[in-house]
Amino acid sequence: MGIVEQGNLDRLLVDVFVLFLAAKVVGQLFEFAHQPSVLGELIAGVVVGPAVLGWVEIGQLLEALAELGVIFLLFQVGLETRFSDLRSVGRSAITVALLGVTAPFVLGWGYMLLRGEGNVEALFVGTALVATSVGVTARVLADMGLLAEAESRIILGAAVLDDILAIVILAIVSGVAAGTISAWSVIVVIVEAIAFVGFLAVVGTRIVRRYPHWLEAALPVRAPFAVALILCLGLSALAAAVGLAAIIGAFMAGMVLAEARDHYSLEKKMEPVTQFLSPFFFTVTGAKVSLDALGRGSLLLTTLVLTALAIAGKMIGGIIGARRLGARSGLIVGAGMTPRGEVGLIVASLGLATGTITRDIFSVVVAMAIATTIVSPPALIALFRPRLAGTGHASSHGESSERDL
Amino acid sequence: MGIVEQGNLDRLLVDVFVLFLAAKVVGQLFEFAHQPSVLGELIAGVVVGPAVLGWVEIGQLLEALAELGVIFLLFQVGLETRFSDLRSVGRSAITVALLGVTAPFVLGWGYMLLRGEGNVEALFVGTALVATSVGVTARVLADMGLLAEAESRIILGAAVLDDILAIVILAIVSGVAAGTISAWSVIVVIVEAIAFVGFLAVVGTRIVRRYPHWLEAALPVRAPFAVALILCLGLSALAAAVGLAAIIGAFMAGMVLAEARDHYSLEKKMEPVTQFLSPFFFTVTGAKVSLDALGRGSLLLTTLVLTALAIAGKMIGGIIGARRLGARSGLIVGAGMTPRGEVGLIVASLGLATGTITRDIFSVVVAMAIATTIVSPPALIALFRPRLAGTGHASSHGESSERDL
Repeated sequence: MGIVEQGNLDRLLVDVFVLFLAAKVVGQLFEFAHQPSVLGELIAGVVVGPAVLGWVEIGQLLEALAELGVIFLLFQVGLETRFSDLRSVGRSAITVALLGVTAPFVLGWGYMLLRGEGNVEALFVGTALVATSVGVTARVLADMGLLAEAESRIILGAAVLDDILAIVILAIVSGVAAGTISAWSVIVVIVEAIAFVGFLAVVGTRIVRRYPHWLEAALPVRAPFAVALILCLGLSALAAAVGLAAIIGAFMAGMVLAEARDHYSLEKKMEPVTQFLSPFFFTVTGAKVSLDALGRGSLLLTTLVLTALAIAGKMIGGIIGARRLGARSGLIVGAGMTPRGEVGLIVASLGLATGTITRDIFSVVVAMAIATTIVSPPALIALFRPRLAGTGHASSHGESSERDL
Repeated sequence: MGIVEQGNLDRLLVDVFVLFLAAKVVGQLFEFAHQPSVLGELIAGVVVGPAVLGWVEIGQLLEALAELGVIFLLFQVGLETRFSDLRSVGRSAITVALLGVTAPFVLGWGYMLLRGEGNVEALFVGTALVATSVGVTARVLADMGLLAEAESRIILGAAVLDDILAIVILAIVSGVAAGTISAWSVIVVIVEAIAFVGFLAVVGTRIVRRYPHWLEAALPVRAPFAVALILCLGLSALAAAVGLAAIIGAFMAGMVLAEARDHYSLEKKMEPVTQFLSPFFFTVTGAKVSLDALGRGSLLLTTLVLTALAIAGKMIGGIIGARRLGARSGLIVGAGMTPRGEVGLIVASLGLATGTITRDIFSVVVAMAIATTIVSPPALIALFRPRLAGTGHASSHGESSERDL
């Protein structure tokens, strides 16, 4: 009896159905065309969202599903990543992160100053260009079975460091904007973020490697899958509490548990959960595209320039950071670090809410975040293609993992 | 960077973590004590909810997760049920549904009239006693591996019919309350509900039995698991649209797909999704317990009497409907049909919103819904115990399915 008072839940059910159906149908069409299904899901969101058909309006409920979707996606990617995999590319990842944060920040800041914007507004826009939103890239790499490639490990490692650097920059810029920058609060932010990531990476992984069976013994919960979900949710919430992205916590949780993966088939259990929830992240992201931001001619040039700078900044980081792997690998890393997704949106929203940036600049930043997210998957596919052709992956990316469902 | 503007989502993440952790820990403790884990999850919700600790406040986001959880739970139960299983107990299920709807309705209505309430208010209370909320029972039966028992099949079949009868009664009573009862609109409700269930049960199952491979071929989505999820979500939304409970649509979707279950391991794929989401239904239900409804002495007696009548009504249906299986089986069916859960809450909310019932009576109905939901699992376990002991289930219910996670 859903007849009454259930209006919102019933409406949600319809939205969930429409988004999931659209994601799967368009995603599949993209696979037929040898394109990544995640790009199809993004497009599906654009199409059913307010920009085109207007069938689905994105509210808090769908945002929440999207958030859970990207959390479990990064958790699953973490499950397939060992800390030692990241450590082995540590130096490259550090360079990619440092340059990939500095370059877009300086480029965005400088461009805004050139356009005649105020310094604080320019700083905010620079900040919005900083942090990679690694969800889309992670999904492309996972779908194509490329998570073990050196470039993929560099991207994942750099994305974690990049998020730490980004919250440091945001803490400083917000302080400048509010006129009350306190060295102490910036230090607290830095220490918390580094302590969180460092503790999990170094101590957490060691504990699990040494005592893999604590998953069954440490809690009165004897089901390892349930313990894994608890750890994922807990560390995601904790990451958000120290100012990092929740997905960084989820990724770290996965990486810690990866040390015990020989004992439990956690990845296999997670797969259906991610299969159900992760499309919401991509369709909801797509549905945020509003054509009026892109449609206004006067802003189009600014949007294009800012998007180009956002891409160029990450490419500089990628090419220099991954130089020992060659130019193509550098471009792969740059393309993988390109999506700004919801991270750019968050900074832009903060700027708008505090009155630091105008609504025009807000629209430009939102358009940049969406554009960088949408151009990244095909670029990654194109750059990886020679390698895929060599291993016979090219015609079946994603499908092989979908088919046995 | 969850630092800002993400307040609600970050809060949700903490709530999701707390509810899931509490559900799993208390659920496991109940299993140690040879009690159904679902009862532990309900209690976990009571404890972390506003009634005791107040750590979690139930808002729309958690309600939505709970709704998805119970939808997938019933979908999974449907996957383990074939229409022929229900048809073979059809006559019993029909009697259970008819008597199990009529008896509580008349008892509740009569008691309210005796207490001196108005006729319309009494009718509303009677209606709130009508429909079984089969989620809790389904979970107990699934956890204990009892879905194939005759009593379980009677309960599931009766729950579907019961929901049809309930929307018919609600349509009539709402019409009486509004003073505008239209035979036509009642007929539309009846026809829609019967057409929905009848078409799926008879035609849908036949199509899938005949062409099991349409799951791969009918849509451009080649992954059977994705098609199954789409069907589940679509039929849940459609059920809600014709006035039935969404979970009835989910159950029917599962039952239709059960005909193809030999070809795909859909149940196995669904398990992790249900494992993650279904605890939210039970903890959220538990967290709705508010002690002030039960605490007021003047209402306590009314609550107890109404709860007793709610139980007695379903027992009458069970004992008479399942009489050929014996008295114990009748009690099992009655106990299985006892929970009113969210269905009672929906009717009560409608009554309150339209000013038909007072806040006192609303509180009484809410307390009845919760009480019937909480007493049902231990009663089911106790009644099934001799059979479980015989098959060695008694000491491991639930665990066996959890352990291999």
